[in-house]
This record gives sequence, structure tokens and C-alpha cells, in this order.
Amino acid sequence: MSEPFDAVDVIRTKRDGGAVPEEKLRWLVDAYTRGYVADAQMAAFAMAVLLNGMGREEIRVLTDAMIASGERMDFSGIGKRTTDKHSTGGVGDKITLPLAPLVAAYGVAVPQLSGRGLGHTGGTLDKLESIPGWRAALTNDEMMSQLAGPAGAVICAAGTGLAPADKKLYALRDVTGTVEAIPLIASSIMSKKIAEGTESLVLDVKFGSGAFMKDESRARELAETMVRLGTDSGVTTTALLTDMSTPLGLAVGNANEVRESVDVLAGGGPVDVVELTVALATEMLRMAGVDDADPADALADGRAMDSWRRMIEAQGGDADAPLPAPNETEVIRADRDGVITRIDAFGVGIAAWRLGAGRARAEDSVDHAAGIDLAVKPGDAVKRGDIIMTLGASEAGRFDRAADALVGAWEIGDTAPGPAPIVRDRITA
Amino acid sequence: MSEPFDAVDVIRTKRDGGAVPEEKLRWLVDAYTRGYVADAQMAAFAMAVLLNGMGREEIRVLTDAMIASGERMDFSGIGKRTTDKHSTGGVGDKITLPLAPLVAAYGVAVPQLSGRGLGHTGGTLDKLESIPGWRAALTNDEMMSQLAGPAGAVICAAGTGLAPADKKLYALRDVTGTVEAIPLIASSIMSKKIAEGTESLVLDVKFGSGAFMKDESRARELAETMVRLGTDSGVTTTALLTDMSTPLGLAVGNANEVRESVDVLAGGGPVDVVELTVALATEMLRMAGVDDADPADALADGRAMDSWRRMIEAQGGDADAPLPAPNETEVIRADRDGVITRIDAFGVGIAAWRLGAGRARAEDSVDHAAGIDLAVKPGDAVKRGDIIMTLGASEAGRFDRAADALVGAWEIGDTAPGPAPIVRDRITA
Repeated sequence: MSEPFDAVDVIRTKRDGGAVPEEKLRWLVDAYTRGYVADAQMAAFAMAVLLNGMGREEIRVLTDAMIASGERMDFSGIGKRTTDKHSTGGVGDKITLPLAPLVAAYGVAVPQLSGRGLGHTGGTLDKLESIPGWRAALTNDEMMSQLAGPAGAVICAAGTGLAPADKKLYALRDVTGTVEAIPLIASSIMSKKIAEGTESLVLDVKFGSGAFMKDESRARELAETMVRLGTDSGVTTTALLTDMSTPLGLAVGNANEVRESVDVLAGGGPVDVVELTVALATEMLRMAGVDDADPADALADGRAMDSWRRMIEAQGGDADAPLPAPNETEVIRADRDGVITRIDAFGVGIAAWRLGAGRARAEDSVDHAAGIDLAVKPGDAVKRGDIIMTLGASEAGRFDRAADALVGAWEIGDTAPGPAPIVRDRITA
Repeated sequence: MSEPFDAVDVIRTKRDGGAVPEEKLRWLVDAYTRGYVADAQMAAFAMAVLLNGMGREEIRVLTDAMIASGERMDFSGIGKRTTDKHSTGGVGDKITLPLAPLVAAYGVAVPQLSGRGLGHTGGTLDKLESIPGWRAALTNDEMMSQLAGPAGAVICAAGTGLAPADKKLYALRDVTGTVEAIPLIASSIMSKKIAEGTESLVLDVKFGSGAFMKDESRARELAETMVRLGTDSGVTTTALLTDMSTPLGLAVGNANEVRESVDVLAGGGPVDVVELTVALATEMLRMAGVDDADPADALADGRAMDSWRRMIEAQGGDADAPLPAPNETEVIRADRDGVITRIDAFGVGIAAWRLGAGRARAEDSVDHAAGIDLAVKPGDAVKRGDIIMTLGASEAGRFDRAADALVGAWEIGDTAPGPAPIVRDRITA
């Protein structure tokens, strides 16, 4: 079959700052997925997109073309409203764990297709796999019946059938220095979420040292781009712009993050984790038509915990089983009296990763027991000798390199820092 | 062996507008030639270079790295000064044919490694292969003895050993929309010329419809870049910026361009071809230390013609043999009285190509007899019915598509256009 367009012509249009017409952009994505357009051509195109940008309509078409490359799920048969959340990733970001069952407790289905961690940010599936028996891989039928049934929420691995073009393009961007293009990030995230078939979506777009986007203005641009894209594609979408300069909560790892999530579901837990969970749940419930609920109630009265148990047990997990704990621990202590002025998310994320909580390559496994437990947060007063954090690993040999990442990553001063709310802005269509 | 650098890091530097440090740029070129750096990575890098540019030192290092990827020739043993010319390519550009023997007539060696044509601009080797017996492929030893001997000039195919990195990168740029990057064009041209080992070089950098660079300011930028690069690399380099909006001379094809070149060597020929040949020869002789010569003299007194015969015969050619002529011809005539105001080089180049004088793919052969002979040039007065040009081909079936390319490519008006000198500027270090 002869091809209707020429890849070089499409690349040149973007290179010269033009907008690629819809039919050419759709062809490019399709021909790349089929292997007709070469990796080298797509890499040149991706670099041109990174440097010259894309207009709103181009981003919508690109996203739609990536969705069209694979299957599309449909939850219209489950008899419930659906809503979902996506986070751009952070250190200690276990929010999906309490959030999905919390929203499901209000009768709204949460089809949360999640990923695994790579680098210094953890993955939701890795954390949940700390729970004995819990399995991430579900068939579409299992997912549907779990959503339709009493659990109502599902956190599972995305099938390979969703947006295969994105999978191929993402791997290419990773080796060609083109990850950071906002149109490509937005279309990558949103193609999977739209293909997944949720009616509404809240985006947790993070900025700061522990986030993918260090810079608030770039994070805002990404949030605005994704909200427009969701809206243009028929998915009700809002975004919260949130601070990721300090780890979320006290636990950074896998099993310890599950533990902290269960604390939140039991009505306790760190203030920042509760604040963000409730803020995101409020967005999701509102978009799903539940306007009159305060999600904090379901955390306080046990409904969210019941929902969690149903969700975990539906996927084979034993919600009561003890979670893995590290063989070896080491503590870091305050070297003076004062007040904690800073705990850097990136440093803590790298340290937890080096302890074994994360993976360097996609094919590595993670150590569920490894991680860091903070004893304090910015603003807390400490005395010399107080524990700042506890590192846990399966071998003591890991502590040195982890500790290296923590040099300069925390600070004790004389004056407490000002209040730092997690949620900095709310972005809507 | 582990690699000292990371391709993504190098790409990011250029993507973010930085200068790539010397050792990293050398590594990139070497690792790409070895196949460690993937085509996709080099394509992303090339697009970043196209959009963000390169500094003078980066271009020098890139060029040097491409030279270092292959062999380097050395003419220091031939006992003569050496000089060479490179043209960025045009329509009817047969200048190398009279130029090389003209300069050699003054005792300066001209090692002219040439290429074949692709697209609407012809190749010097294709033209010379119209001459029965002439062969383009010489061994290095043959080339050396021809330069040292009475011929003194050689026009032959560049061996595959010169700058193999450039060969690989050029093929990649061709399919990724990254041909037009000035640092990459300059390093591609100059790596081969510097590796060839000439002491001095004149560049004929063309602009206008028939040139690779349509725009004068871009051509000037390319010329300045290449002159700096040659100078930085120890090759005395000057450039002439020349007009390629009208075909050079009257003949566009292969055998007919040889015929026109012989006219020039015999002291005749079209004024523009003579003007450009003499201008380039003057530059080459001056750089080779021959300051007191007027090259027009050697055209007038037969020395250049003798030199041509020696050069052609040294490569097996029969300088007296009849040249191929087309089986079929068709004329285009003036549709009114007036004066020729425009003959568009691009249109004539495409028409000659469609007649069979050029090739669409590198593996195609050319029809040496095919081409176009102009009967008039801009400024010439014509009467209705006068011949404007004659098309020649081996089959009459080629005339229709060739004629399509000529629609609007020539114009008769009432007022003669102003004088249009070929050489517009001279650029030196």
C-alpha cells in the first residue's frame, strides 16, 4: 500500500514552526506504530515539538491518534459514575492508596490504572505489592466486575492494549532527550487516561525538587494543557497544582507507605497526606455528581477503611497480614537544637531508591521493605540527638550511598519556616 | 568497553541551547559511526542543532571528528601547490570542467574529488562520463601520479574512506528533515574537502531558485561558516557568493555541458560561464601563490585546452570523440515579440531532470544525451516564433512532463532586466 504522506514533509512543518494538519498527524502516529515511519524520523519530530511547541488542536489530534492506535475501554455498563486520578509522581506519593477506596465509599467507581516506579519516584503498584497475596494484573472482565461490585475501586496494571503508540513513543523519547516536551507529556498521560474510559479525571500536577517538573510555571503549563486536552476529548478534567519540594507524609518506600495509607484510612496519618487525599477526593466526587459530601467524614467513620479492605481483598490481598519490614535500620540524628527548616524531596527520594525501594531499570525488582521513615517534618522543633529519619534496607551495605544522597537534604535552623500548603492552585477548563 | 559519555546528556545540552564540550562531541560522532549511538539519537541531536545552532568552535570540532572517522589524504609529496573548488550546486553548473584544467595550466595541482547529481542539480562526474572512455574511479596512486605529472588536475570520485561519519549522517539527515542545518551542511562539505588534503579551497556558494539555498542571506551565512571552518582547520579558504536564479550558460544536461565547457576552453562560450570560471580560477591561483596571472589568457591562447586534453586522456577519455546527442528534440518558441526577462533555473533544472539528465534515486543511471539547450538568456530580444530552448531526450514521451516544469519558468517582457552579475560577493577569513 502506498503511503498518503511523507514523514520528512511532516517533520519540516513542525521544524519550521507550523501546525501539522490533522490528517498528517494522524498518519504520522499510525505509520510510526506500524513501523513505516522510522524511530529516527519520530525522534527528529519529537525534538521539533519540544523546541517549537504544538497548538491546542494539534495536541488534541496527537492524543486522539495515540488512543486510536489501541483499544478503548468502556465502563458505561457498570451502572455507576466513574472518576479517576493521575499524579505526575512524587516522593512519598501514596495518595492513590487511600484516595481510590475513599471515593468508592461514596458509590463512585474508580478505575485506577497505575504504573510502576522508575528512578526516584515510586510506583503505586510496587507499593501495593507489599501486601501479601495482592495482584496487579486483572483481566478486563475482572476489572469490570470489581468496579460494578461492592469494592467499586480497582487499582491495577494498565493492559498493553491501551495506546500502544504512546508506549513506543515514550521509549523513544526516553533515549533521545525529548521526554520534557509538554505536548508530548500531556498527550502521553492523557491518551492512556482517555482510552481507559473514565468520565472524569483529577490531575495532581506536582512541582518542586521531588517532582518531574521542578519549576512551578512549567507544571502550571502542563496542568493547563492536560485540562484543556481532557475537556476537548470529552473527559471532565480538573487539576491541582501541588508542592513536591518536601516528601509527602512521613513514609517513603513501599510497605511503609501502605502502612501510612492505612493510618489515613483509619482517620489518622500525617496532615499533608490527609489534606491532599481529601482535596483530590472532593474534586473527584464533585465531578461525579456527589456535591454534598465531605470526604473527611468517610475517613473518620470507617467507611473508607471498609472500602479499602474490599478493594484489597477483591484482588487477593490479605488486608490484615503483617507487611514486610527491613532487616537493617540506621538512624540519622539532629546535630544541633533548632527547628527543621527543610527536608528535600529529591534527596530523600534518591536515598530511598538507593536503599532498594526503587528500580534503576524497568526490569529490576523492588525491595518492598526498604525505605525511609521521617520522624519530623519542616516546622518541627528538635533537640540535638533527636532522630530525624530512619533508613531501612535488607543489607547494611546500602546505607552509605543512601546517606550520601541525604547530605544537605535536610536543615535545622533557628526560625520555623512559614506555612507551606500542599495545594497551590486549582485549574479548571 | 564502557562508554565515557551518555548520548541523552549530549542531546540535552544542545536542546537547551548550550555548547557541547569538545570531548563529548568527538565521542558522539565516533560512537555514532561505530553504531553505539542510535540513528534516533543522532536525529534528535541534528534537529536540536538545526533549531539551536552551533558555535564556531563546535562546528570546527564536529568537522574534525568527522574527518577523524576516516582516512586523510596527503598531497605533500607531489611537489606542487594544491587548490580545489567546491560548489553548492546549481543548474548548468559545469564550471569544474573548464576550471580544473585552467588552474592546472599554471602549474598548480587541482585534486577535484567530485560527486554525482541527485535531483535537479547535475553532478560533475555524470557530465564527464559523457566522454567515451573516461573513468571516474581512480586509485589513490593513480590520482597522485596524475597530479604530479603533466595533467596536474584530476576530477574523480571521492573514495568511500573519506569521512564515513559524514556519509552516515548525511543519509540520516536526508530522511529526518535535518538537511538544512547550516552547521551540518558546512561540516559535511568541509570534512570531505579537508580530509582530501588540499592546501587551499574556493567555495562557490550559490543562492536563488536553482540553488540549494534559495535565500541570499542564508547562503551568505553558510559561506561565512565554511570560510571560518576552513581557516580554523588550516585550509586557506575563500568563498564567492553567486547568483543561481538563471541557469549557468546555455547548456543544462550532461554531454551538452561538456560541449559548452570545451567552447570555454577554446576561448569562447557563454559570458557568464567564462566570468565565473575566471573569477574562481583567480581565487585559486592567488591562494596557491600565483598572483600575477590573468586566467583569461590561458583560455585565449590554448594552454587551458591542452591541459583539458591531458586531464581527460589521463583518465582514459577520448577528447576528440563525438559526444552523445539526443534521439528526439522539441523546441519551445517565443509566443510574442519582446525581451527575455527571466529564465528560472529551478524550472529548467527540473525539466532537464525529467528529460533524463538527472536521477531520482542514487542508484539510477543518467541519460548523457538528454538535456536542455537555451537559445537565449535574460536580456536577449526575441521575435514571436523564435526558439527559446531545445529539449532533448531519448524518447519523445518525456517531453510533456518536462514541458510542465517549464510553464511560467520563462518570461518575455517589454523592458530588458538590469544587469545581473554572477558573482555577488567575495567572502574571506
